This record gives sequence, structure tokens and C-alpha cells, in this order.
Amino acid sequence: MGGPVGPSSGGRSVGADLCGIGDLEDVELAEILGHALALRELPSLPEVLRGRQIVAAFAEPSTRTRMSFQAAARRLGADVVAFDGGASTSASKGESALDALQNLDAMGFDAFVVRDRRQGWARRLRGELRARVINAGDGIGEHPTQALLDAATILEVFGRSAAEGKNSLKGLRIAICGDILHSRVAGSDLRLLPRLGASVVAAGPPGLIDPAALPSSVDFAESLDQALVGADVIMMLRVQRERLPAALELPDDVSYHTRWGLSVPRLGLAKAGAIVLHPGPMNRGVEIASEVADGPRSRILLQAHLGVAVRMAVLARACGRQNLLPRAHP
Amino acid sequence: MGGPVGPSSGGRSVGADLCGIGDLEDVELAEILGHALALRELPSLPEVLRGRQIVAAFAEPSTRTRMSFQAAARRLGADVVAFDGGASTSASKGESALDALQNLDAMGFDAFVVRDRRQGWARRLRGELRARVINAGDGIGEHPTQALLDAATILEVFGRSAAEGKNSLKGLRIAICGDILHSRVAGSDLRLLPRLGASVVAAGPPGLIDPAALPSSVDFAESLDQALVGADVIMMLRVQRERLPAALELPDDVSYHTRWGLSVPRLGLAKAGAIVLHPGPMNRGVEIASEVADGPRSRILLQAHLGVAVRMAVLARACGRQNLLPRAHP
Amino acid sequence: MGGPVGPSSGGRSVGADLCGIGDLEDVELAEILGHALALRELPSLPEVLRGRQIVAAFAEPSTRTRMSFQAAARRLGADVVAFDGGASTSASKGESALDALQNLDAMGFDAFVVRDRRQGWARRLRGELRARVINAGDGIGEHPTQALLDAATILEVFGRSAAEGKNSLKGLRIAICGDILHSRVAGSDLRLLPRLGASVVAAGPPGLIDPAALPSSVDFAESLDQALVGADVIMMLRVQRERLPAALELPDDVSYHTRWGLSVPRLGLAKAGAIVLHPGPMNRGVEIASEVADGPRSRILLQAHLGVAVRMAVLARACGRQNLLPRAHP
Repeated sequence: MGGPVGPSSGGRSVGADLCGIGDLEDVELAEILGHALALRELPSLPEVLRGRQIVAAFAEPSTRTRMSFQAAARRLGADVVAFDGGASTSASKGESALDALQNLDAMGFDAFVVRDRRQGWARRLRGELRARVINAGDGIGEHPTQALLDAATILEVFGRSAAEGKNSLKGLRIAICGDILHSRVAGSDLRLLPRLGASVVAAGPPGLIDPAALPSSVDFAESLDQALVGADVIMMLRVQRERLPAALELPDDVSYHTRWGLSVPRLGLAKAGAIVLHPGPMNRGVEIASEVADGPRSRILLQAHLGVAVRMAVLARACGRQNLLPRAHP
Repeated sequence: MGGPVGPSSGGRSVGADLCGIGDLEDVELAEILGHALALRELPSLPEVLRGRQIVAAFAEPSTRTRMSFQAAARRLGADVVAFDGGASTSASKGESALDALQNLDAMGFDAFVVRDRRQGWARRLRGELRARVINAGDGIGEHPTQALLDAATILEVFGRSAAEGKNSLKGLRIAICGDILHSRVAGSDLRLLPRLGASVVAAGPPGLIDPAALPSSVDFAESLDQALVGADVIMMLRVQRERLPAALELPDDVSYHTRWGLSVPRLGLAKAGAIVLHPGPMNRGVEIASEVADGPRSRILLQAHLGVAVRMAVLARACGRQNLLPRAHP
Repeated sequence: MGGPVGPSSGGRSVGADLCGIGDLEDVELAEILGHALALRELPSLPEVLRGRQIVAAFAEPSTRTRMSFQAAARRLGADVVAFDGGASTSASKGESALDALQNLDAMGFDAFVVRDRRQGWARRLRGELRARVINAGDGIGEHPTQALLDAATILEVFGRSAAEGKNSLKGLRIAICGDILHSRVAGSDLRLLPRLGASVVAAGPPGLIDPAALPSSVDFAESLDQALVGADVIMMLRVQRERLPAALELPDDVSYHTRWGLSVPRLGLAKAGAIVLHPGPMNRGVEIASEVADGPRSRILLQAHLGVAVRMAVLARACGRQNLLPRAHP
């Protein structure tokens, strides 16, 4: 839709988009991760985003991501308004999603956190909206804040600092296992973790991984067992059943677990101090045994915990307020 | 439901309802429009509605109106709680909507923003609730804040002032075209724009307009082309398919567009500087061509932008806080 | 799910759960009720819960309870995030509700207000979450904040003080009538009101009450008429149709009303100054006549009004902030 909307309609709003890991310069990456790890120690923060208004436009189901963004925004004083794009909206009157979002954009919101089944949707919106766009998952594309919280968790557990750049995760072996092909989490992790110096190996069942499509810096393992050997971090992914091609025949849950599920015995193949991550939602007894999910090596709840801090940093960046902390952190 | 609820139960809460344009005195009308135009220039505002709580009771689908009210309320510091009256509420337990709303009213909310398929619903509630009522659309009745934002947009584009009262829009010809009969937007615009001195003409397909029911100050045109001649403002309306009588046979979308759609060539019939408005949601290729909606004469996004300011002024009035601005504006 | 989430993961958060009336010591009970009655007189309050974040996890339909908690939380400055556990969440991806809630818990929310069809669900969660748990209804179990607001209403109307402990409601006869067996409201009222010194009698149709299961301090009446004789307070309950055993055959609505509905003539059996309460939602013409619900003895809206104050006190307790009032009240 055309036409001027106000004095500021000449360009994009102050701030920065996050459609994929590639949007982050090395220095920004270090800054966000550093902020995130510092933020979680602070009992309370100045409300640096007070008066800011953020749209949460989730066109696919979400609990943890949506609520994590909402908690993050509110802790910084920003307001969040949900746009579901579904039955309760004017979609039922035949309007296009883009018209609706442009209309909201004209209302002066500062940022849109968007989830959609279409790969590239966040990037598409970036070209259409004045407000800044944060990708909370675009089909099988990317889910950058999830990868950032994965990285923050590993930094935290292994006592590393994001200020080390390409050496931040040096010497750590990270195994990403499961449905690599249809996971936007993997899409972002495979872009992010090697940049921080990690050695990454990916493994998954036939039809759920394409060795030729892996980044050159990422190793391919034929089996889960092979991927686990020597791993410091094991990242398990669920099968994205809602995004599989209809023709793909998968083993049943029990067979899947036997070959591709992380069990306690199998966990013994990894290093002694190895940790287990999962972006959730988990299918217990399928890609991960309950004993592992609830066991001493699991850092799954730490991921959820750090996710809020990561999203605070990302939201502040989107709104042009990078200096979140009361004083500059190291 | 009877019985006292507290010290303040003796009467309505401080503030004013807005069930239709007729609720506004001339001086209030000028004040709201003046405030709205002034508000949009302000980067931030004192939170004059801090601590106030507003119920958004939308029983029909809504994106833009609901989110515009929410953005407006939050910018003034008020809290908004959604009541959908639908599946997730106690409607499924057999309770009447009125009982539920009266119960909420007893909780001490300051205002109810209501949308319903029943004409007159907002007025009905005004007689039952202590809190103030703002009509956000009642069937084919009225949608007063939409008409106010239409007026604010025209004032802004043509550099007029609401302080001029009946001369505010003097000399401007406004064409309202499409489904006049089932549009609550038209219901409010036809009441408002002539009061501001505009010359208004209405046109629409048979079955979607009733010439005899138009206000005496409004002209009737037999065709869209005829309505466009000499127009400064063209307001296109979608067909309210959800509210049409079952027996009404409408042309298909292509035929509709041929006779009643605003295309680029047809836009040439209007004045050189004419602007195009649409309350949304748009059906592109039906009542409006994409080239027009996205073209240089469109002020559709400006409508959305000014809508927030208008609703800030209306919400403040509903809560008894008329002096929104840091200092009195001219 | 296992694993540390942060410095505070060693134990539960500061504050207190409210899973049932039994969770409240006598002194806490007096404090909450005293606060609630004092709070309602205050025009505004310091935002003692500012920066706190509360999850509203309602897995069953709710209007009044959900919105009452939300209004209460916001009046104290706390933020509320809704988790519906339904279609728009990751439940559709096969995740267990408990995994989702533990994940949210790791994000650092302060309290969960939970409603579920499973009796004992709130108590179950108390053992799993770091945040504090408030039961907003667990199947046919309890609904403690409803019983607290019932008590607050009776104290208010009869000019009693909660500081009197077991003498607070001494000398008052309270009749609870209807579907006792499947009402969690009754479940909490029958535990609470005798503790405050009230004389309580319960009555209901066959299949909807089990005389042997009533607390020993509660009388059983064979008929509604018998229960009403001498009552100061009449609390009517709707039939919880969504929770009845399939085999139970109930009379139709008209027959139900004839035998078990509170009509104006029947109200005459109670004391002259008797008041009528109903937790809502009401089925007019079934368990209660409209003339009674809207009549001079009804205090149903006062219940809704006091409910917000009660929930403010309960939320503050859950977050470890008991001193709500600007100065200590008597």
C-alpha cells in the first residue's frame, strides 16, 4: 500500500533486523551473546524499551518462543501485541497477510517478531515494513534466536566468553542430530556455531539430512553413534512432522528411538562431561529418552532460561537500543 | 444482575461513551480531531491513563481496529484485557454475554471497547454498564472511530483545521463508494463528514445502497463514474459479504471490479489532487485495483497511522481525561 | 527436565502456593481477607509487583476468573502472559503440558495461575515448578480464590472482620445449594466457611451431592426448601454439565428449576435480610430465577468486585510481597 504515513516514513526505523545469523556482524554477535550472559545475572534492569511496542506475529503454533519473547520484551518495559493472522483476524475477510502487516506497520510499532511456515518470509517482510523484523522461525529456513541461545548455553556451561570471537568455542565438538533438513534451528546453528570456532558434526536418518547441503565446515556422520563419539555438546532435534514431504516414510517411534534416539547408554559414547541440549518441544521416547532429558547432563532448562536474556538483547538491538546494561560490561 | 458493588456503584464512571457520531457535541468533535492531529507529532506522551484498565470485547473478527485501540491505550499507559466472548470463555457454559460483561464491569474496568454483529449493541450496553462504552463496530450500525480517523486524514492531507467546525472540510467533495447499506463505516462517515462541511456523494450497486435512506445532505450517484467526477476524496468500501441478505445476488469479483472497482483510469475522473481512502480490509482486484491501493494517491496507510492518535483521544475522553497534551494545543 | 537453570535454581521462589484452602494458616487467612476488604477502598496502590511476571495457564474455558486475576495482577504492576496449552501452542507438536510448563518455569516467571480439568493438577505442579502455583480450579477439586471472595463478600455485607478468626462468621447460617459433588467452588467453600465459624448446610439433587462425603461440620438438607429455612446467605451453584458422569440422568431445566431453582417465593423461606450469591456463570431459569439474580438480595456483582481485591492479596502472597497496603491496616 502506498502513501506517506508521517514524518518518519522516509525510511526504516532506527534499529536492526534479525532475519538470519548472516545479519549479524562478528562484533554484534559477540555483543549480543555477551549481553545475554551478563543480563541473566541482573535482578532487574532499567526499562530501556519503555514506550516501545512490539508485534508478535506468530502464524504457526508456538509456546516457548512466543512467551520467551514476551517475557523478554516486558522485562525491558516494552509492550507486546499479538497478531495471530488467523481466525480471529481480518484474514477471514479475504485480506492478505501482507496488507494486514503493512497496516500495523503504519500504526507505528517498533518491531515485528514473526513466525511463518514460508521460508524467507522474514526477509520478505524486511523489504516491506518500516519497523524492524525479527525472525522467530520461517519454515525450514532459520530460527536465529534459538541458535543464539544454544551458543549462549554452551558458552555459559564451558566458561567461555563471546569476546573471543572465532575462538569462543574452540576445541569443543558439537553434534547436531536428527531432522537436520527440516529444522530451522539446525539451519541457524549450522551457520552460527562454526563461526564461533566450534567443530560441528551433523547426523540424521535418510531423508532428514542432505550431506551435500551441509556447510563445508560441518562434518557428516553416518550414524548417531558415530556423531556422538568425542562430543562435548549433543543437540537433539525432533522430527518436524508438520514439514515433511508426504512421500517420506519414517520408521515408527520405537524404531526411530532404537536407531536415532539419545538413550543413557548411547550418551556414554560422548565425552565424560558432555551436555545435552534440545530446542523443544521434545518427543520423549522418540529422539530423546526421558532419562536423558531429565538427567544430570541435560541443560535443556538452562537453554530456556538463557533464551529470555538472548531475546532481550535482540529486541533492544531491533529497537536501536544496544546499551542494555547499567554500565558497559567487559 | 442486581446489588451494590461498591462506593461508586451509584452511577456511571467519570468519562463519556462513544456509541455513535451523534454522541459528540461539535466542540468535542473539534477537540478529538485537534488532539489526534497534534498527538501524532509527539514522540512520547505522559501516561495520562496509567492505572486505567480497558476491556477489548471483540465478538467479531478484527485485526486493525483491535490492535489500533490496544496500541493507543498502551501509549497512554492504560492496560487492555481481551474478552473474546467465544470458545475460550464461559459462553460455552451457557452464560449470556450480558451477564459476563456486567460481571467484568463489577471488577472495576474503566471502559469497554466493543464490537458485535448486533446493531445497537454498544448503546444497549451503555444502559447496563457502569464503565464507559466505545463502539468499535455494531453490525451495520456505526463505527465512529473509523469515521473520525477518516476525517483526521482528510484534514491532515488538505491542511484543514478541526477548529473551523462546519467549515473544516468546506469546499471538499467526498465520494463514498461501494456497499453503503451494510457498512458501519459508511454509517458513521455519512453522519460525520457533512457536519464538518464536506459535500458528500454516495454510490453503490443495487442492493448495496438505498438512496431513500441517505441523509438529506448527501448526494446519490447512479454510478461510480458519476460519483468520482469532481471528487477530492474517494473512499472505497468492501462488500460486507458476512452481512448480506442470503437472497442478494452479487456480480462475481471480476464483474464487480469492472463496474464498481476503482482502477487507475477511473481515478482520472476525479480531481487532479484527489486522494484515495479505504477503511480496510481491502479486497484487491474487487473494489480497488492494487495499482490504486499502492499508488501515489493512496492515503490508506496514513489512515492507519492517524487511527492510533484518534483512538488515544477517544480513550482519554472515555476515561474522563481530555487534556492529553503536555500543553494546550491551539 | 533436569539441569540447573541459574543461581536461584536451588529451590522454590520466594512466596507461597495456594493449591487449596488447606494451604492457608489461620493467620494468613485473616490477612488475605483483611487485605482484600481494605484494598477495595483504595483508589490506587503502589505497584508492589512491578517487574513480576505471571503465567495464566487456563486449560479450561474461563472469563471471569482469568480476567479477574489479570486485572488484579496489573493493578499491582505485574505482567500477565497467557499460556493456553491448546491449539496455538506446541501441544500440537506432541509435547507434554508438563514439559511446556517446566520450560516456562525456567524462563523465570514468578507465579503460575493454573486451571485444569484434572483434580490435583495444581498440587502436582507445585512439586515440579520453581515458581509459585495458584489454583484457579482443578477439575472437581478446589477453587480457593472463589471461596475467599465468597467469604470476603459475606464479611463485607454483614460488617464482620476477618481478624476475629473462628468467630468471623459466627452466628451466620450459609446454605450451599446445587451441584455440590462436581463443584470445585463448593469444594473450597465447604473447607473455608466452617473455619470462619459459619454454620453451613448443603443441599442438592440426587447424584449431585454425597451426604457421606460432606465435612462433619456441614449439615445436609434433603431439599432446597429445607436448606433455605433460617439462612443468612444462599449460595447457588450451577450444574457442572461438563463434568457429570455420562450415566447420570438429570431433570430438564424446567423441572430442575421447579425443585432446585431459587425463585422469589422460595427466597422468602430464608431470613429477612438474607443475601444471594452465585460464583457464575449463571444459568438463568435453571438454578436461579432472573428476578432473584437481578433482585435486591443479590450480591453477585459484589462478589465479582471483591474478587479482584482477593486475587491481588493472593498474587502478592505468591510473589512474597504480603504488605500490600501503604500502611498496615488494623
